[in-house]
Amino acid sequence: MAGIADARPAACRLIIVSGDWLDAVKWDSDGLVPAIAQDAGDGRVLMVAWMNREALRLTAEEGSAVYWSRSRRKLWHKGEESGNRQSVKEIRLDCDNDVIILQIEQIGGIACHTGRRSCFFQRLEGGEWKTVEPVLKDPAELYGKR
Amino acid sequence: MAGIADARPAACRLIIVSGDWLDAVKWDSDGLVPAIAQDAGDGRVLMVAWMNREALRLTAEEGSAVYWSRSRRKLWHKGEESGNRQSVKEIRLDCDNDVIILQIEQIGGIACHTGRRSCFFQRLEGGEWKTVEPVLKDPAELYGKR
Repeated sequence: MAGIADARPAACRLIIVSGDWLDAVKWDSDGLVPAIAQDAGDGRVLMVAWMNREALRLTAEEGSAVYWSRSRRKLWHKGEESGNRQSVKEIRLDCDNDVIILQIEQIGGIACHTGRRSCFFQRLEGGEWKTVEPVLKDPAELYGKR
Repeated sequence: MAGIADARPAACRLIIVSGDWLDAVKWDSDGLVPAIAQDAGDGRVLMVAWMNREALRLTAEEGSAVYWSRSRRKLWHKGEESGNRQSVKEIRLDCDNDVIILQIEQIGGIACHTGRRSCFFQRLEGGEWKTVEPVLKDPAELYGKR
């Protein structure tokens, strides 16, 4: 992680470069795993996206979340358009080695492309999905500012 | 959800039966979506599993988490062996309609088949995945008690 990695002894950095820890991850048939971004402050789950090996490696090295966009079929440095980067505090792997969770600080306070804090703004109520959270910023403004 | 559904007017229950809300979910090519189970009390993310349409329908109707086991290829009523059911307080869907998050109460306090509270017990430290949480109960005991 940024800063953290730089402060480590050279031996540790060599371990990161070796990528053994990346081999431990059970990538699916598309070479991906789901990655949860959780607010390190209050525990709110902000979004789920996908990572390939390169995205996870870059996330660890840069200390800023990098995902794999399945629709655009390319690496997606979260915040590259909106400026709303995700500063990564911790990376964990689950018991099956096939799901990642990041503890993050969400720069700008908005993780969702709809302009809401979290992507999980639809709640099941009375057999319908109800939108229960406000748009904090117009997406047009969010993606036009850089 | 158990109790909640019963207390609703008949019209609402009919909406649930109709399954329109299930049609809104973007099931993947295998008919599945990832589902996050988050502790409704303190926000700890306990596990991620998969749901098909029937699993999500049953989760909403029964108020107890039901997943689809990809390895066993069958519905998996969480806690059916261990007794550690997940009482569901809330169901949300993300902006792309392809990830579910459940707010749950984890009966027995153990969500992971390894006997740990959460499945996310491996933390990336110095280029290695370190196990950073204790086993609370021997899995042999966990799965032998019913």
